[in-house]
Formats: sequence, C-alpha cells, structure tokens
Amino acid sequence: MLKGHGDDICDYSGVRLNFSSNISWQADASPLLDYLKGRMETLRSYPEPDAGSLERAWAESLGLPEGSVCATSGATQAIYLIAQAFEGRRSTILSPTFSEYGDACRMFRHDVGLAWSVDGLEVSGGGLCWICNPNNPTGLVWNVDAVEELVDSNPGCIFVIDHSYAPYTDRRLMTAAEACSRPNVLMLHSMTKRYGVPGLRLGGITGRPALVSEIRRFMFPWSVNALAIEAGKFLISHGNLFGMDVQSILAERQRVSESLSAVGGMELWPSDTNMLLACLRNGKSAALKDFLVRRHGILIRDASNFEGLDDRFFRIAVQRPEEDDLLVEAIREWIYNC
Amino acid sequence: MLKGHGDDICDYSGVRLNFSSNISWQADASPLLDYLKGRMETLRSYPEPDAGSLERAWAESLGLPEGSVCATSGATQAIYLIAQAFEGRRSTILSPTFSEYGDACRMFRHDVGLAWSVDGLEVSGGGLCWICNPNNPTGLVWNVDAVEELVDSNPGCIFVIDHSYAPYTDRRLMTAAEACSRPNVLMLHSMTKRYGVPGLRLGGITGRPALVSEIRRFMFPWSVNALAIEAGKFLISHGNLFGMDVQSILAERQRVSESLSAVGGMELWPSDTNMLLACLRNGKSAALKDFLVRRHGILIRDASNFEGLDDRFFRIAVQRPEEDDLLVEAIREWIYNC
Repeated sequence: MLKGHGDDICDYSGVRLNFSSNISWQADASPLLDYLKGRMETLRSYPEPDAGSLERAWAESLGLPEGSVCATSGATQAIYLIAQAFEGRRSTILSPTFSEYGDACRMFRHDVGLAWSVDGLEVSGGGLCWICNPNNPTGLVWNVDAVEELVDSNPGCIFVIDHSYAPYTDRRLMTAAEACSRPNVLMLHSMTKRYGVPGLRLGGITGRPALVSEIRRFMFPWSVNALAIEAGKFLISHGNLFGMDVQSILAERQRVSESLSAVGGMELWPSDTNMLLACLRNGKSAALKDFLVRRHGILIRDASNFEGLDDRFFRIAVQRPEEDDLLVEAIREWIYNC
Repeated sequence: MLKGHGDDICDYSGVRLNFSSNISWQADASPLLDYLKGRMETLRSYPEPDAGSLERAWAESLGLPEGSVCATSGATQAIYLIAQAFEGRRSTILSPTFSEYGDACRMFRHDVGLAWSVDGLEVSGGGLCWICNPNNPTGLVWNVDAVEELVDSNPGCIFVIDHSYAPYTDRRLMTAAEACSRPNVLMLHSMTKRYGVPGLRLGGITGRPALVSEIRRFMFPWSVNALAIEAGKFLISHGNLFGMDVQSILAERQRVSESLSAVGGMELWPSDTNMLLACLRNGKSAALKDFLVRRHGILIRDASNFEGLDDRFFRIAVQRPEEDDLLVEAIREWIYNC
C-alpha cells in the first residue's frame, strides 16, 4: 500500500505536532544522527550486497547463531520477502493490524484469512500465521503463553511475529532467542520505532538459520543502504546512549486514555504500549483528522483503512504531556463543536 | 546475486586504489555529501511511501509527463520489480552483461535466453529484451539506430534499456524522452554512476505512464530512504555542481588500453566508456586480483562470473592517470613474474 499509512506528514504543511506514527519523542535519534554525519563517506562505496557484517554483529548481540539474522530495508521489506518466499500459501492474519501483511500476501497470491484472537485460533499446516505483537493499531500485547502454545502446537505452520513495537511495552514477550529456538518462527524487528529513524530504512528478520536462509534467497543485492548498515552497527554497540523510560511512556498513555474518556464521544481500546486506538461515536475520523491538522497543526492517524476497522477509528501515539494536553483539548473542541 | 559483484572493497582491508566499480574519480560526491549532512533530520520521519515528490521533480527535469518516473532503491530494485511485473515471460538478455538481469528473471520464472548482438537479434512477442547500453562489463555502446529499429519493429516486446552508464560515453544514445514516446520501452537510471554515491541506493525507471504504473504496483512502501529522496531532489536541481569531463575520461581509457596492450599477455575489448574488459592469455583473473590486492592494495573486478565470460576475464574502470599507471605497472609485474 503506497498511500494511507501513518506519518503522512510529507503530505501536509504546517504540522506542529505529530501523533500519527507510533514513535515516542523519547526515541531521540540525536546521538545516531551526530554519528552518521561523520560517516557520510561510506556513501561513496557500494554497501555490502548482503549487509553481512551487520547481520553477524546483530546476531551476536542477541546471542543468536550466525545466519539467524537477515537485515532488510525496514521491516516492510522483510514482510514482502517472507510473503514471496512462501508464495501461494494459506496465511492467517491476526487483525486488525498493519496492512502490509495482507498486501504482501495478496501480492504473492496467498490465500488470506483474518482472525481476531490468539485464543482458539486455528491455523493451517503448511501455512503462515502473522502476529504483530505488540499489535498495531491497537497497542495490545497478545499473551505470550497463548502465543507460545499456538506456535508449539502447530509445528507445520510458520509464525511471523512482528516485534517492531516491543520497545514500547513492559508486558512479557517471546525473546529473539526463544523464537530462534523454534523451527517455525520468523521474528521481525524494526530499528525505527526504538531509535526514531524511520527515514533510514533498517529492519530485520531473526529465526533459525535454515529458515532465514529460505528468505535470504529473495533479497536483491544492496537492499540495505550504506548509512543504514553504519547505523545498525552503531546502535548495536551504543544502544545505551538512547535512554527510553517505558514506564513513563505507559503512564502517559494511561493518563491520555483517561483524559479522552473524560472528553467522551469515543471508545478507547485497551493498550499495552504508547499507542491508542479510538472509535468515534459520532462523525468520521477523516473529518477529525482534517480539523486537527488545519486548525491546530496536529497530525493523527486516520485508522479507517485498517482491515476490520471502519471510518470512525483513529490512532495516536502519545508524546510529551504538554503536547498530549493540546491534542486532548483540540479533540474536545471538535467533539463539541463539529 | 549477493556475492561476486564489483566494489567488494568491504571484503578487503588495505585497498588503496579501487578500479573494481564502474565509477570515475571525477564523479565526486562531495557537494552532495555536504548538502546531506544538513538534511539528516529527514531521517526522523518516514519518507514518502512512494517517493512521489522526487518522481515528479525528476519527470519534470527530463521533460516527461507526470507518472513516467518510478524512483527505486538503486537500479537493482528496478530490475527486480520489472522481472516481477512480467513474471514468467520469455526474456532475452544481451550478453555478457550485468548478472542481475538474469538473476531477477530467473527468480520470477522467466524463460531466459542469451543473445550476443543487437544485429539480427530475434525477440519474442509478449516477451522482454534486456539491453545494458552502454554495456557492463564491456563498456561498449550498442548502436542507437540498431536499437531503435529493434524496438520499433517489435512492438509486442518490452525493451528494458539500462542507461546506468550513459554519463560515461559520448556516443549517441536513446534519450529518456525518446524512450518515453515509445509504448514498449522501460529505461533504467542510476544516480550512483554519475554522482559517485553507490551507498545511497537511488535509481529509477522511466517510460510511458501506463507501462510504469504496471511496475509501481509491485513497489513495497518506503523503498527509497529519506536521504536518497533528498539527494535525488538536490541532484536534479544542482547537477551543474558536479563537473565531469567525459572526453578526458575517454582519452584516459584509451591511453590505459594502449598501455595494457603494450604490456601484452591479454586481449583488451573495445570500449566506449570508462571501463575496460580484458582477457588474460595465461593465468586466471582470480590470481591476478589476489596478487594486486595483497601486494599493491589495488582492487580490480574479477569478471569470470559474468555469464558468457570465463575465468580469464577482468574489468577495470580507469581513474586518475597516476593511479592508472600504478595499475598498469602492477599488472605488468604479475604478467612477467607469476
């Protein structure tokens, strides 16, 4: 899907506050950007065709064997590569969720079915099951015990577990090592959400080397740009420079959720992360989005195009308290006046 | 192909002189790198999912209608997208040439056939024909009249004409506008070769909007990273900052060709660009490459893995005269002593 994602800030002028992508202000890329300014010379040479040195460092940092990481141009390329490698399979997608799973599966002629909970979920032997955990756009974490039981009782199904939002929850999740110990899990990772660099395009797949190598066959060379490789190596060895206080982010999300509940006019979905999904009782999210960006320079995510949702849904990622207060007030203005 | 390309400088330490990628020292990225250092903040937001603003500016700069450019993560992504969009077709590849055409076609189950000249070339209706012009690794330009006659007399065949090396020749080529005026041409472009930024990953496809839109359907979102989009826009409006004297490059290539001929022990293929393909009379290019990098810190391209060539071939791109002289002397040393 080339249109309709969040962080469509490029389509608007005058945006002061951006709640539309799932990235916290605490994911501050500054130390990384400073470092990369000194590494611009790497753009003068071809990157490694397969980003191999980054993959080895990444595997080592996660305590995984060599061959268990495939670095990609953002988690999105990873999604398309997996769909391609298992072309034509049956894919079950836990929904509502990130639209690219379905788009990628349909591009590669999967037989796509949607499911709505891990509880009682039935998957196909020989098929795939896509689980975004924590989930986008709800922010909910699927219970790790339920996920593990599902995975282990269906060894014939490949589970694609997208951990892009893992840095934003304190709920227990399957670790990369636990995923790698299983023959049927591919885990997706994003550098963007944790370190605030969505423009860089750096993500990856971890899993058993034999399974990951099936995916790597479909990489085109030089998929990962030279600065992304540099960035990845820096983040692996200097992650401690990037402070992020998950508890404060979660407390702020709870506060915003309560403030919006007090405003009324919408239902707030429960969340375990920094994001909030809301459903308007009256009016449409497109109208709210339009009002907020034009009147207040505030960008939210119209969530109507998530499969399973409708035109009443919007999504926000909480930011600084004073910014969130402005958002809540602006939404209140729309609810009571429009 | 993830291994075996040129500019494998990442696999070697101590390389002082790099003749292995087809980029001239005159393609000096310095003005661009200086500019990009001031645009690092763009990495904090998602790029446009489709790089649309760059595509529009690029089309305008080439005098092409809107919709006639598809920006890609290097010309290599363009190759794979085209192979995917025309999955399962018959593809004729003018050889020896860049291996990715064949790799991409085989990934998407094309029926691949090789051809060795545009003269008398027969192509399939409903098929594709891949022409690298100027060609890599030979540096030869296929005669534009012959190419145009081939294209126009085979309207049922899609011609993929890779212009990545166009900045390195003074021979007449089909222009992007001439390609776009035809219903059956997709032209590939690289920002890397002209501006010396292979690490950035920026290329593109031009052609009739209806034809280009068939390719764009297979792009995954955010394929082109934020700095590459910034770079593309800068290069379109500031290309004049990047002086490159093609005549001096071609004269130097001629001088080096004569010097190597005088050394003897190899056959030099004719070239219309900065690159030279050579075939050793005795010994193997892998041994020559190994000697040059270990003894002299000089990197050349072992060209043995180009389909149609064998283990006696190597390729160089000429650089500064004093550097080229060191290369010639080092090759002479190997020829007479090994």
